[in-house]
Amino acid sequence: MLQYNRLMSIDVRHPKELRAAIRGGKLTRTTAGLAPDYVQANLAVLPKEQAYDFLLFCQRNPRSCPLLEVTDAGSAEPKGVAPGADLRTDIVKYRIYKHGEVVDEVTDATAYWRDDLVAFLLGCSFTFEQAMVQAGVRLWHLENEKAVAMWRTNIECRPAGVFHGPMVVSMRPIRPGDLSKAVTASARFPGAHGAPVHIGDPAAIGITDVQKPHYGDAQHMASGDIPVFWACGVTPQAVALASKPPFMITHSPGHMFITDLPNSALSAL
Amino acid sequence: MLQYNRLMSIDVRHPKELRAAIRGGKLTRTTAGLAPDYVQANLAVLPKEQAYDFLLFCQRNPRSCPLLEVTDAGSAEPKGVAPGADLRTDIVKYRIYKHGEVVDEVTDATAYWRDDLVAFLLGCSFTFEQAMVQAGVRLWHLENEKAVAMWRTNIECRPAGVFHGPMVVSMRPIRPGDLSKAVTASARFPGAHGAPVHIGDPAAIGITDVQKPHYGDAQHMASGDIPVFWACGVTPQAVALASKPPFMITHSPGHMFITDLPNSALSAL
Repeated sequence: MLQYNRLMSIDVRHPKELRAAIRGGKLTRTTAGLAPDYVQANLAVLPKEQAYDFLLFCQRNPRSCPLLEVTDAGSAEPKGVAPGADLRTDIVKYRIYKHGEVVDEVTDATAYWRDDLVAFLLGCSFTFEQAMVQAGVRLWHLENEKAVAMWRTNIECRPAGVFHGPMVVSMRPIRPGDLSKAVTASARFPGAHGAPVHIGDPAAIGITDVQKPHYGDAQHMASGDIPVFWACGVTPQAVALASKPPFMITHSPGHMFITDLPNSALSAL
Repeated sequence: MLQYNRLMSIDVRHPKELRAAIRGGKLTRTTAGLAPDYVQANLAVLPKEQAYDFLLFCQRNPRSCPLLEVTDAGSAEPKGVAPGADLRTDIVKYRIYKHGEVVDEVTDATAYWRDDLVAFLLGCSFTFEQAMVQAGVRLWHLENEKAVAMWRTNIECRPAGVFHGPMVVSMRPIRPGDLSKAVTASARFPGAHGAPVHIGDPAAIGITDVQKPHYGDAQHMASGDIPVFWACGVTPQAVALASKPPFMITHSPGHMFITDLPNSALSAL
């Protein structure tokens, strides 16, 4: 919390209030720092026709795709994680895709909603980062208001139907003295990517230049820092788009859905 | 392990050897005590037509339905947990259901296999019981070669499509001094039902007589013992059969599928 408080604007209102403010157009920022004790989620919306394969892909790749919620076809209410919420209006910004290409970016997805759509909500890194910060782990990107560094790796996801592709990972430089805490604090949250998938040599997972991420910002590695890699929620989005589904809706980067689940609800211990 | 060694026949061959012996008809016993350091799994096989709803039901009820594997339609190979195995032959005994009724019990399910079948493997209590025993927790039913006690509860599962019904729980009497260890040892295994869903008063979850289980054996409660309840793998089978699917295959009670996953693979920490 210290790191967040120092550098990031924190809003500790309850998720219900925050979602109402988003729905009413009164809150338009990215969601980092909003209700930091509650689980935020990645959104992926697909037609029912693709839903079985995508659900199976998530089941087979739980580190990359920690599923928190799947709505009934046509319903925009995530009954399990935020009863009463509306996934068409309660996210700040959405991207609309056709055949894998962005065709629109909107603040209200109601006009694009259809009776055959299934919404998937997936756990995100905010949950385990919060746990690491609370355990005393220093995270450079939070202290410097940057994004994490992300790469496509040589780790193949287990395919399911039309969906296949490499695991995307995020990297955070960790001080040697913080490494045990970073592992145990994140491992407690299998619902939010869990423990690191790799620690150390970037080349071992196919990363040739640790200063040149495929997505996000390059990280500052202080002397002795160890690069630590976690499965990243960009994976399912990248895999879904690579299959060029006829239609898909996602949240816009940084603008997550805020659930009613306290972070502790995802803790295994 | 002490409890197992004292009273139960242990076979520590690798799962591959045990499955070969089962396939060849040379091993016909129940699987308790076989390869105790490896994950055993419940089997449910359904036509593709019911597979989406069942997969969604498992996603929505992870405590009762900890999914370990879902095969591609028509494939009997559980590639994720036991590559090379054959789910039609590598289980000792199967039950064949039509419209929710048992129509056959067989030692080889090949004759019943179809191109549209999807096999689901779900984590089972052996994994967390082994963890509790290794943590020093005494378990009456293991020491006395009984089954656990099981009840349908007043806890409704979250429905998905055609599947709905109450959570079935298993109960083990725990000594007060063992309670913390019982909780933490089982909580480490969210892939095998995880932490207890209830501790103490049976009436709170709709159980009227703790000496009269709906399934399994009544447990001996020593003075001071606390009844501890875990979500049970009977839930998905009961829920699936209650929907009277046209066709379904399961393992026969006590005759689980033995995977290549060490128990530690399911541990969150």
